[in-house]
Amino acid sequence: MKIYFAGSIRGGREDAALYQQIIEYLKTFGDVLTEHIGDPKLTDLGDDGPTDSYIHNRDLEWLQSADFLVAEVTTVSMGVGYEIGRAVESGKKVLCLFRPETGKNLSAMITGCPNLELVNYSDFDEVKLELKRFLGV
Amino acid sequence: MKIYFAGSIRGGREDAALYQQIIEYLKTFGDVLTEHIGDPKLTDLGDDGPTDSYIHNRDLEWLQSADFLVAEVTTVSMGVGYEIGRAVESGKKVLCLFRPETGKNLSAMITGCPNLELVNYSDFDEVKLELKRFLGV
Repeated sequence: MKIYFAGSIRGGREDAALYQQIIEYLKTFGDVLTEHIGDPKLTDLGDDGPTDSYIHNRDLEWLQSADFLVAEVTTVSMGVGYEIGRAVESGKKVLCLFRPETGKNLSAMITGCPNLELVNYSDFDEVKLELKRFLGV
Repeated sequence: MKIYFAGSIRGGREDAALYQQIIEYLKTFGDVLTEHIGDPKLTDLGDDGPTDSYIHNRDLEWLQSADFLVAEVTTVSMGVGYEIGRAVESGKKVLCLFRPETGKNLSAMITGCPNLELVNYSDFDEVKLELKRFLGV
Protein backbone atom coordinates (compact mmCIF):
# COMPACT_ATOMS: atom_id res chain seq x y z
CA MET A 1 0.00 0.00 0.00
CA LYS A 2 1.39 3.41 -0.99
CA ILE A 3 0.33 6.43 1.05
CA TYR A 4 1.02 10.08 0.22
CA PHE A 5 1.02 12.19 3.37
CA ALA A 6 0.53 15.95 2.89
CA GLY A 7 1.35 18.61 5.49
CA SER A 8 2.44 22.23 5.46
CA ILE A 9 6.07 23.12 4.69
CA ARG A 10 6.35 26.73 3.50
CA GLY A 11 2.94 27.57 5.05
CA GLY A 12 4.50 26.97 8.50
CA ARG A 13 6.08 24.10 10.42
CA GLU A 14 4.29 24.36 13.77
CA ASP A 15 2.67 20.93 13.30
CA ALA A 16 5.84 19.12 12.14
CA ALA A 17 6.00 16.87 15.24
CA LEU A 18 2.38 15.83 14.71
CA TYR A 19 3.07 15.08 11.02
CA GLN A 20 5.93 12.82 12.12
CA GLN A 21 3.63 10.99 14.56
CA ILE A 22 1.01 10.39 11.84
CA ILE A 23 3.69 9.24 9.36
CA GLU A 24 5.18 6.77 11.85
CA TYR A 25 1.73 5.27 12.41
CA LEU A 26 0.97 5.13 8.65
CA LYS A 27 4.28 3.29 8.08
CA THR A 28 2.91 0.30 10.00
CA PHE A 29 0.45 -0.23 7.12
CA GLY A 30 2.46 0.62 4.00
CA ASP A 31 5.00 2.88 2.28
CA VAL A 32 4.73 6.58 3.13
CA LEU A 33 6.15 8.27 0.04
CA THR A 34 6.56 11.70 1.66
CA GLU A 35 8.26 10.66 4.89
CA HIS A 36 10.40 13.85 4.87
CA ILE A 37 7.29 16.02 5.64
CA GLY A 38 7.68 15.00 9.30
CA ASP A 39 11.42 15.72 9.46
CA PRO A 40 12.03 18.27 12.26
CA LYS A 41 15.07 19.57 10.35
CA LEU A 42 12.88 20.61 7.39
CA THR A 43 12.06 24.32 7.87
CA ASP A 44 9.53 26.61 6.21
CA LEU A 45 12.20 27.49 3.62
CA GLY A 46 11.09 24.18 2.11
CA ASP A 47 14.48 23.20 0.70
CA ASP A 48 13.63 19.51 0.36
CA GLY A 49 15.04 19.27 -3.16
CA PRO A 50 17.59 20.97 -5.42
CA THR A 51 15.00 23.12 -7.25
CA ASP A 52 11.26 23.87 -6.92
CA SER A 53 10.66 22.22 -10.26
CA TYR A 54 12.37 19.04 -9.00
CA ILE A 55 10.29 19.11 -5.78
CA HIS A 56 7.02 19.60 -7.69
CA ASN A 57 7.65 16.88 -10.24
CA ARG A 58 8.91 14.36 -7.67
CA ASP A 59 5.93 14.99 -5.38
CA LEU A 60 3.43 14.77 -8.26
CA GLU A 61 4.90 11.47 -9.40
CA TRP A 62 4.54 10.17 -5.83
CA LEU A 63 0.97 11.50 -5.62
CA GLN A 64 0.00 9.85 -8.89
CA SER A 65 1.46 6.51 -7.78
CA ALA A 66 -0.21 6.59 -4.35
CA ASP A 67 -3.28 4.57 -3.38
CA PHE A 68 -4.34 7.12 -0.75
CA LEU A 69 -3.77 10.77 0.12
CA VAL A 70 -3.84 11.61 3.83
CA ALA A 71 -3.59 15.36 4.56
CA GLU A 72 -3.32 17.21 7.88
CA VAL A 73 -5.08 20.47 6.95
CA THR A 74 -5.01 22.50 10.19
CA THR A 75 -2.04 24.68 9.16
CA VAL A 76 -3.09 26.66 6.09
CA SER A 77 -0.96 25.61 3.12
CA MET A 78 -1.18 26.43 -0.58
CA GLY A 79 0.73 23.24 -1.46
CA VAL A 80 -1.52 20.93 0.56
CA GLY A 81 -4.57 22.54 -1.07
CA TYR A 82 -2.99 22.01 -4.50
CA GLU A 83 -2.25 18.34 -3.78
CA ILE A 84 -5.81 17.73 -2.53
CA GLY A 85 -7.20 19.45 -5.65
CA ARG A 86 -5.11 17.33 -8.01
CA ALA A 87 -5.95 14.13 -6.11
CA VAL A 88 -9.70 14.84 -6.05
CA GLU A 89 -9.75 15.80 -9.75
CA SER A 90 -7.99 12.54 -10.63
CA GLY A 91 -10.41 10.45 -8.52
CA LYS A 92 -8.01 9.40 -5.76
CA LYS A 93 -9.17 8.53 -2.23
CA VAL A 94 -8.50 11.52 0.07
CA LEU A 95 -8.70 11.84 3.87
CA CYS A 96 -8.31 15.28 5.50
CA LEU A 97 -7.58 15.61 9.23
CA PHE A 98 -8.47 18.86 11.02
CA ARG A 99 -8.27 20.11 14.64
CA PRO A 100 -11.20 22.50 15.22
CA GLU A 101 -9.99 23.36 18.74
CA THR A 102 -7.20 25.50 17.18
CA GLY A 103 -9.92 27.99 16.19
CA LYS A 104 -8.65 28.08 12.60
CA ASN A 105 -11.04 28.55 9.68
CA LEU A 106 -10.85 25.63 7.26
CA SER A 107 -11.59 26.45 3.61
CA ALA A 108 -15.08 25.68 2.26
CA MET A 109 -13.24 24.00 -0.64
CA ILE A 110 -12.29 21.28 1.89
CA THR A 111 -15.27 21.30 4.29
CA GLY A 112 -17.77 21.42 1.41
CA CYS A 113 -16.11 18.94 -0.97
CA PRO A 114 -18.21 15.82 -1.60
CA ASN A 115 -15.24 13.87 -3.02
CA LEU A 116 -13.09 13.61 0.10
CA GLU A 117 -13.48 12.54 3.72
CA LEU A 118 -12.96 15.15 6.43
CA VAL A 119 -12.32 14.10 10.02
CA ASN A 120 -12.33 16.59 12.90
CA TYR A 121 -10.22 15.37 15.82
CA SER A 122 -8.60 16.49 19.03
CA ASP A 123 -6.29 13.65 20.05
CA PHE A 124 -4.08 11.13 18.33
CA ASP A 125 -6.06 8.04 19.41
CA GLU A 126 -8.99 9.30 17.32
CA VAL A 127 -6.64 9.75 14.33
CA LYS A 128 -5.43 6.16 14.64
CA LEU A 129 -8.98 4.76 14.53
CA GLU A 130 -9.93 6.98 11.57
CA LEU A 131 -6.79 6.05 9.64
CA LYS A 132 -7.41 2.32 10.13
CA ARG A 133 -11.01 2.72 8.98
CA PHE A 134 -10.02 4.86 5.96
CA LEU A 135 -7.24 2.48 4.84
CA GLY A 136 -9.43 -0.58 5.45
CA VAL A 137 -6.86 -2.27 7.73
CA MET B 1 -14.73 35.08 -22.13
CA LYS B 2 -15.30 33.57 -18.65
CA ILE B 3 -12.65 34.18 -16.01
CA TYR B 4 -12.46 32.54 -12.58
CA PHE B 5 -10.56 34.75 -10.14
CA ALA B 6 -9.16 33.03 -7.02
CA GLY B 7 -8.03 34.83 -3.86
CA SER B 8 -7.88 34.04 -0.17
CA ILE B 9 -11.07 34.19 1.95
CA ARG B 10 -10.68 32.11 5.14
CA GLY B 11 -6.85 32.19 4.81
CA GLY B 12 -7.03 35.97 5.44
CA ARG B 13 -8.53 39.07 3.80
CA GLU B 14 -5.55 41.45 3.90
CA ASP B 15 -5.38 41.58 0.07
CA ALA B 16 -9.14 42.04 -0.50
CA ALA B 17 -8.74 45.57 -1.95
CA LEU B 18 -6.15 44.30 -4.41
CA TYR B 19 -8.43 41.41 -5.44
CA GLN B 20 -11.14 43.97 -6.16
CA GLN B 21 -8.76 46.03 -8.31
CA ILE B 22 -7.76 42.95 -10.34
CA ILE B 23 -11.41 41.86 -10.73
CA GLU B 24 -12.47 45.34 -11.95
CA TYR B 25 -9.71 45.23 -14.57
CA LEU B 26 -10.59 41.65 -15.64
CA LYS B 27 -14.24 42.69 -16.09
CA THR B 28 -13.21 44.93 -19.00
CA PHE B 29 -12.39 41.73 -20.94
CA GLY B 30 -15.10 39.26 -19.91
CA ASP B 31 -17.29 37.82 -17.15
CA VAL B 32 -15.60 37.37 -13.78
CA LEU B 33 -17.52 34.50 -12.21
CA THR B 34 -16.19 35.04 -8.68
CA GLU B 35 -16.69 38.79 -8.38
CA HIS B 36 -17.58 38.47 -4.66
CA ILE B 37 -13.93 37.56 -3.80
CA GLY B 38 -13.11 41.28 -3.97
CA ASP B 39 -16.08 42.35 -1.81
CA PRO B 40 -14.72 44.30 1.21
CA LYS B 41 -17.72 43.11 3.26
CA LEU B 42 -16.66 39.45 2.83
CA THR B 43 -14.63 38.52 5.94
CA ASP B 44 -12.39 35.56 6.73
CA LEU B 45 -15.45 33.77 8.14
CA GLY B 46 -16.10 33.07 4.45
CA ASP B 47 -19.90 33.11 4.69
CA ASP B 48 -20.41 33.68 0.96
CA GLY B 49 -23.10 31.00 0.69
CA PRO B 50 -25.69 29.23 2.86
CA THR B 51 -23.51 26.12 3.46
CA ASP B 52 -19.93 25.05 2.72
CA SER B 53 -21.24 22.36 0.43
CA TYR B 54 -23.19 24.97 -1.55
CA ILE B 55 -20.08 27.23 -1.77
CA HIS B 56 -17.86 24.37 -2.94
CA ASN B 57 -20.25 23.07 -5.58
CA ARG B 58 -21.10 26.55 -6.92
CA ASP B 59 -17.41 27.50 -7.14
CA LEU B 60 -16.46 24.21 -8.81
CA GLU B 61 -19.19 24.63 -11.40
CA TRP B 62 -17.87 28.13 -12.12
CA LEU B 63 -14.29 26.82 -12.29
CA GLN B 64 -15.25 24.07 -14.72
CA SER B 65 -17.09 26.54 -16.98
CA ALA B 66 -14.27 29.11 -16.99
CA ASP B 67 -11.84 29.66 -19.86
CA PHE B 68 -9.10 30.93 -17.54
CA LEU B 69 -8.13 30.79 -13.87
CA VAL B 70 -6.34 33.86 -12.51
CA ALA B 71 -5.13 33.46 -8.90
CA GLU B 72 -3.49 35.97 -6.57
CA VAL B 73 -1.31 33.62 -4.48
CA THR B 74 0.51 35.95 -2.06
CA THR B 75 -1.80 35.27 0.91
CA VAL B 76 -1.50 31.59 1.76
CA SER B 77 -4.84 29.87 1.15
CA MET B 78 -5.87 26.22 1.17
CA GLY B 79 -8.84 26.96 -1.10
CA VAL B 80 -6.79 28.80 -3.73
CA GLY B 81 -4.31 25.91 -3.76
CA TYR B 82 -7.19 23.45 -4.19
CA GLU B 83 -8.67 25.44 -7.08
CA ILE B 84 -5.29 25.66 -8.82
CA GLY B 85 -4.79 21.90 -8.36
CA ARG B 86 -8.19 21.05 -9.84
CA ALA B 87 -7.69 23.48 -12.74
CA VAL B 88 -4.19 22.17 -13.57
CA GLU B 89 -5.30 18.54 -13.36
CA SER B 90 -8.19 19.25 -15.76
CA GLY B 91 -5.90 21.04 -18.24
CA LYS B 92 -7.21 24.60 -17.76
CA LYS B 93 -5.06 27.70 -18.41
CA VAL B 94 -3.82 29.08 -15.07
CA LEU B 95 -2.05 32.35 -14.21
CA CYS B 96 -0.69 32.88 -10.68
CA LEU B 97 0.25 36.38 -9.47
CA PHE B 98 2.74 36.75 -6.58
CA ARG B 99 4.35 39.70 -4.77
CA PRO B 100 7.87 38.60 -3.66
CA GLU B 101 8.46 41.90 -1.82
CA THR B 102 6.09 40.69 0.95
CA GLY B 103 8.82 38.21 1.96
CA LYS B 104 6.33 35.33 1.93
CA ASN B 105 7.38 31.82 0.92
CA LEU B 106 5.38 30.57 -2.05
CA SER B 107 4.82 26.80 -2.22
CA ALA B 108 7.05 24.75 -4.53
CA MET B 109 3.82 23.20 -5.81
CA ILE B 110 3.16 26.60 -7.44
CA THR B 111 6.69 27.85 -8.22
CA GLY B 112 7.76 24.45 -9.59
CA CYS B 113 4.63 23.56 -11.55
CA PRO B 114 5.25 23.30 -15.32
CA ASN B 115 1.51 23.51 -16.14
CA LEU B 116 0.81 27.06 -14.99
CA GLU B 117 2.24 30.54 -15.50
CA LEU B 118 3.67 32.34 -12.49
CA VAL B 119 4.21 36.11 -12.58
CA ASN B 120 6.12 37.94 -9.84
CA TYR B 121 5.08 41.60 -9.62
CA SER B 122 5.30 44.65 -7.42
CA ASP B 123 2.82 47.14 -8.91
CA PHE B 124 -0.55 47.03 -10.59
CA ASP B 125 0.66 48.33 -13.97
CA GLU B 126 2.74 45.17 -14.35
CA VAL B 127 -0.31 43.06 -13.53
CA LYS B 128 -2.35 44.79 -16.24
CA LEU B 129 0.25 44.02 -18.91
CA GLU B 130 0.58 40.41 -17.80
CA LEU B 131 -3.19 39.89 -17.71
CA LYS B 132 -3.59 41.27 -21.25
CA ARG B 133 -0.82 39.02 -22.50
CA PHE B 134 -2.22 35.95 -20.69
CA LEU B 135 -5.79 36.50 -21.92
CA GLY B 136 -4.59 37.30 -25.46
CA VAL B 137 -6.40 40.66 -25.57
